Amino acid sequence: MRAAGGGALAAAAAVTAVALAVAAWRRARPVREVLFFPSRPCCIEALLAEAAEPGAPARPCPCPLPSGDTALSRLVRRLLSARRSLDLCLFSFSCPQLARAVQLLHRRGVRVRLVTDAQYMGLHGSQIGRLRHAGIQVRHDQHSGYMHHKFAIVDRRMLITGSLNWTAQAIQSNRENVLVVEDAEYVKAFQDEFERIWEEYNPANYSFFP
Amino acid sequence: MRAAGGGALAAAAAVTAVALAVAAWRRARPVREVLFFPSRPCCIEALLAEAAEPGAPARPCPCPLPSGDTALSRLVRRLLSARRSLDLCLFSFSCPQLARAVQLLHRRGVRVRLVTDAQYMGLHGSQIGRLRHAGIQVRHDQHSGYMHHKFAIVDRRMLITGSLNWTAQAIQSNRENVLVVEDAEYVKAFQDEFERIWEEYNPANYSFFP
Repeated sequence: MRAAGGGALAAAAAVTAVALAVAAWRRARPVREVLFFPSRPCCIEALLAEAAEPGAPARPCPCPLPSGDTALSRLVRRLLSARRSLDLCLFSFSCPQLARAVQLLHRRGVRVRLVTDAQYMGLHGSQIGRLRHAGIQVRHDQHSGYMHHKFAIVDRRMLITGSLNWTAQAIQSNRENVLVVEDAEYVKAFQDEFERIWEEYNPANYSFFP
Repeated sequence: MRAAGGGALAAAAAVTAVALAVAAWRRARPVREVLFFPSRPCCIEALLAEAAEPGAPARPCPCPLPSGDTALSRLVRRLLSARRSLDLCLFSFSCPQLARAVQLLHRRGVRVRLVTDAQYMGLHGSQIGRLRHAGIQVRHDQHSGYMHHKFAIVDRRMLITGSLNWTAQAIQSNRENVLVVEDAEYVKAFQDEFERIWEEYNPANYSFFP
């Protein structure tokens, strides 16, 4: 009996060691994910609530949508993983769910910067005004061409980029793709592009009398 | 003198060996490239001529554009590297230069398949009709949502994807990005998406009486 008990203990210890090693490997492995849209409809209230108050008891959402694993919920999870900074370079931003996630990060002390397109930021349903009102720094172009990028950089570490504009139409109805990559080379290229645009769109550089 | 001559020969052999090793390493290293637009204007006649008749003497183009290294010329080079297949999944395709590159590949025997958006394929300047007329297989959606992808897969090996629609406006005037990656995992995800769409948009599945 004693030997058998010792064996069981050793086996349990081995299983725990393997589980810890797998968890460490998962943490260390860079994210490489491809999301395709349209996304199935889903409720992200639980994700937002957990991000707002980690560990608080979950309150069920009265909405009829399922809260499963979808392209949208995965995108939201990646955004909510930000701890220090979120740099957004978005042609069009009218999805209220994604705007709530961004606002939540801002409230949590994450440094959010947003670059967008001057012609699209004023369209009906745009979330840019709401985000500006919440105190988030927003800059836009002053050109005839579009600021057509659709990328986000989380903590200067994770790049989220693709064809997806952050609109409900794109998320629910269009064929779209989003790549999520933790790759220093790609992140640096996009971070440099972000900083170039951020400086170029500095309001101090606007010309009002062409 | 003889010893010096031998030394020179050995040095030349060493330089050649290093050059060959670097060339082999370059060939073996997977492509990882990020292109940002707008692209400087450039003439791609020399690239198209070289692809049409490799090794033929270069004829100078009378146009006033420079033929330097630009985001557009790099994109064209990547496309023209196709030997067997080119799968295109493009929301909007109105750039005549890119259409000529695709037609050239088709004429060279590369299997070209093109998926596009039904609402955008008929717009003024669209190259879809011209490509269909040249014998290239084209399929489109039948939905209210957009087929909003903008990706290409070269030889089931290289993925070209980003925010860039294949239009002159996007190339010359917009802030855009394109990733070029030779990465089996990403290519497989996009190739699977292409095949799903290609089947879904099979004309045999169209419904004419909703």
